[in-house]
Amino acid sequence: MGAMDDFLPRPQSADVTPGSFALPAGAAVSGPFADAVRLPLAALDLIPGEDGPVRVVHEPRLGPEAYALEIGADGVRITAGDRAGAFYAAQTLRQLAGPAAFRSSSDGAELAYARIEDAPAYAWRGAHLDVARHFQPKREVLRFIDLIAAHKLNRLHLHLVDDQGWRVESPAYPLLHEVGSHRPQTDVSYYGEEPALDGTPHGGYYTRADLAEIGAYARARAVTVVPEIDVPGHATAILAAYPSLGSRAGESHAVMQEWGISRAILSPLPPTVEFLETVFDEVIGALGSTPYFHVGGDECVLDDWKASPEIAAYQASLGLAGVGELHAWFLRTLADSLAERGSRAVVWDEAFVSGKLRDDTVVMPWRGAGVGRRAAAAGHDVVMTPVFPLYFDYAEAASVEEPLAIGEAVTVADVAAFDPAVAPQVIGLQFQLWSERIPDGRTLDYRAWPRGCAAAEVAWAGNASADFPRRLSTHLERLTAFGVEYRPPAGPHPWQRGGAGPRRHRPGVVPVHDVVRHLDEMTHTPDSTRPS
Amino acid sequence: MGAMDDFLPRPQSADVTPGSFALPAGAAVSGPFADAVRLPLAALDLIPGEDGPVRVVHEPRLGPEAYALEIGADGVRITAGDRAGAFYAAQTLRQLAGPAAFRSSSDGAELAYARIEDAPAYAWRGAHLDVARHFQPKREVLRFIDLIAAHKLNRLHLHLVDDQGWRVESPAYPLLHEVGSHRPQTDVSYYGEEPALDGTPHGGYYTRADLAEIGAYARARAVTVVPEIDVPGHATAILAAYPSLGSRAGESHAVMQEWGISRAILSPLPPTVEFLETVFDEVIGALGSTPYFHVGGDECVLDDWKASPEIAAYQASLGLAGVGELHAWFLRTLADSLAERGSRAVVWDEAFVSGKLRDDTVVMPWRGAGVGRRAAAAGHDVVMTPVFPLYFDYAEAASVEEPLAIGEAVTVADVAAFDPAVAPQVIGLQFQLWSERIPDGRTLDYRAWPRGCAAAEVAWAGNASADFPRRLSTHLERLTAFGVEYRPPAGPHPWQRGGAGPRRHRPGVVPVHDVVRHLDEMTHTPDSTRPS
Repeated sequence: MGAMDDFLPRPQSADVTPGSFALPAGAAVSGPFADAVRLPLAALDLIPGEDGPVRVVHEPRLGPEAYALEIGADGVRITAGDRAGAFYAAQTLRQLAGPAAFRSSSDGAELAYARIEDAPAYAWRGAHLDVARHFQPKREVLRFIDLIAAHKLNRLHLHLVDDQGWRVESPAYPLLHEVGSHRPQTDVSYYGEEPALDGTPHGGYYTRADLAEIGAYARARAVTVVPEIDVPGHATAILAAYPSLGSRAGESHAVMQEWGISRAILSPLPPTVEFLETVFDEVIGALGSTPYFHVGGDECVLDDWKASPEIAAYQASLGLAGVGELHAWFLRTLADSLAERGSRAVVWDEAFVSGKLRDDTVVMPWRGAGVGRRAAAAGHDVVMTPVFPLYFDYAEAASVEEPLAIGEAVTVADVAAFDPAVAPQVIGLQFQLWSERIPDGRTLDYRAWPRGCAAAEVAWAGNASADFPRRLSTHLERLTAFGVEYRPPAGPHPWQRGGAGPRRHRPGVVPVHDVVRHLDEMTHTPDSTRPS
Repeated sequence: MGAMDDFLPRPQSADVTPGSFALPAGAAVSGPFADAVRLPLAALDLIPGEDGPVRVVHEPRLGPEAYALEIGADGVRITAGDRAGAFYAAQTLRQLAGPAAFRSSSDGAELAYARIEDAPAYAWRGAHLDVARHFQPKREVLRFIDLIAAHKLNRLHLHLVDDQGWRVESPAYPLLHEVGSHRPQTDVSYYGEEPALDGTPHGGYYTRADLAEIGAYARARAVTVVPEIDVPGHATAILAAYPSLGSRAGESHAVMQEWGISRAILSPLPPTVEFLETVFDEVIGALGSTPYFHVGGDECVLDDWKASPEIAAYQASLGLAGVGELHAWFLRTLADSLAERGSRAVVWDEAFVSGKLRDDTVVMPWRGAGVGRRAAAAGHDVVMTPVFPLYFDYAEAASVEEPLAIGEAVTVADVAAFDPAVAPQVIGLQFQLWSERIPDGRTLDYRAWPRGCAAAEVAWAGNASADFPRRLSTHLERLTAFGVEYRPPAGPHPWQRGGAGPRRHRPGVVPVHDVVRHLDEMTHTPDSTRPS
């Protein structure tokens, strides 16, 4: 068992000295940002009030998200540059308070005397959650926000639509949530196998009030929700609801039951742009402040654009040379619309390869460091999101004991060894939880943690230090107290294994390094029509 | 859309008058039980403090759990007989505050002027949750406590062990949680069909710290956790861990993968009693105050007791005439042990039919009102738990659209029409969530609500009034805000349906009224060896 001061992520400096201060439950917290300090310490139920043992001071000379934390005989003193800094000081304090502070209530905590100074290495410390392939109920999203915030992560990228589901109530286009939010069954076959449909319906969506709640809940925890409406590909669920937005006249669609890339694609014509602008207004209106908005742009099959005389005519009228340029123009148009609405666009790297991005568009190079470096060199802010080692839908081991994963292996050590600094314009990193094989909250826990702990260490501290494994070992006691069903370092619990049925993993079929090589090659072809 | 004052459950008296009081978030609450008032109003983040708009007064002349609530120009005044009464006043206030008060935060609430006087009809207002057949992670249990407490229910009966799983960490007998807590797969065939194993491992258990947290969380919400260690039948998971406790020498066991009744049974010899007393100490020690402890006693196949010379000799040494009397003696011995530990025993009705119960043992007549009446006539406190209409593992409709259920139908209207008052000694009622076909939290929501709302109405108000359907309609808006995936009155959402695969329901195979008739007949045979 490690020490209570085995912080994770690692602070810039931490001196723990002999002696301790007893902080009782229900103690008073005073000063600015007191509300932000209370949230991580909910187990201790701090009350706003003067003359209490917890005092917060605003120090504007500290940078964004930075803080200092002192515990001495007089109690706790937090100095913060902004509300987020105060929130993170309280997260550090919670770690000092021991695992019990990660339960729903605590009688109080014995806090070691300490002086900690801290600030993040990267501004974008993200977690991506695909609620399209498998819906996660609101409570799982809120809990996931609690967990990422406890790791000082500050972005929740919510992948709200894909071929297999649409997840947001839309007053203007109600068939999106009425038709697009569910499928009659799901393919549980593995890569290269015959389709095997499970016969079990799946679905769900967030109401506008749910989205507002998620946005406010996240903001209170220093997390910015980055919604993604992935277009023009990955749009089968949209087309199932509104087939007229498609690129082939008269074609009907159904929400996809299988995984993989669909050739169905939204038309780039003005009605689609108008539709998406309405959707942007709805999502931004519900979420509240939305500084970033992801519009996807990945894995588009542009054959239907090529085949359509109407689209070809429109392309010609815009003076564009081919469907690759049309793809770029389409995403540029959406980014301009978002800019008018106060949101910066974020895209997957295909949109960068297509060209024509706005300068302020943020690029996520999922296909590797090479394309990330090129996007950075072109002047874009880059958030590193490479498949290796940040796609947590890959198994942690090439083992039949693992539960079903898309491939393997991405280990905690791989994540801890990751260096996102491929170029100065890299503003951070983000791990991805694609959910084709994450059907529920228990599996989400298993995939996200402890790899998410390693990602948080790199994002906050810049890298993982040699003592990361020791600190992680202490940290897992906190996650246990919180009730996180993480993957144990020695491998899955018997009930977390894949078994012999549809959840069994097939190691060796999709080795991650083969995927990585293939993806990197693709980024050298400036042709977004080639799906990966 | 109904009025905010469509309370559920229905208070004894409620007068809502013109005018309203604006209660801001972060307002002060003063007086005794302020902590109990804050919990249901967490969205409003009330702060303990004098001179605030919410004042609590202790009035010992009010009975247990009773309260009065007044909202006027000066704010909110709560009068309560005890802490639970203050908690329930705040639950009523939350309903008056509107659906937003059921989300994670609120900017404040406009409270209609009102005067409400209220007290419960029944002392035992229970919900049973089977975490043995399918494990529910701690977070789902805590959320379920929030939900039952919001309905003024006050007992959580946790079915912690059955043939298919053991769910509590045991320091003295670690193989219980190491071996007994998981199974390699689960049978998804239906009654009368060939076995169909799903190939997917399942399991999990609560640590002692988890159990302590669950107990404290429940107590803070006026809920008493009633743990159940179901013996001597339904014990295959125990026998998988410690086969020496069995009744056939040298027989080994595995945690069951199928449903139905096992003939495996614990031996009644002294080592088993000693084992169970240690387990009682562990569970009570972890949970904290445990005024009631359920020891099961249901569905025992006593053939192995009959066949064992050692058990026969022990039975003779006790002067008992047969295995039925031995079954009664065994449960009586456990009840005596529990009494020494400060807990009253609770049993299923088979234990009453066997005879020899302690006078203070509480009886749960699951096999119908007839045996409940007889237990009451014999002087026992009785909690009504009949299959019809309180087994919520039955579908709400005999429809192939319903997700897989054990049989059908138990409707909301059936629950609302239920009259538990079969005898004066009936102290309350409890609905049961047997989980053979409740694999996850989403399904749990569907099965529990809104039938649980009707059970709460009857338990709190004594019966459901004619306006119950209208009030339920308003109440569902609150559950929607909370994020409850209840069964819509018009039938399941498309993604809640059973589909064509293993979750499809097979209506007509197990009609509940056939089951009820069969069970009632069995209660007339004082022979606990006959399984149902």
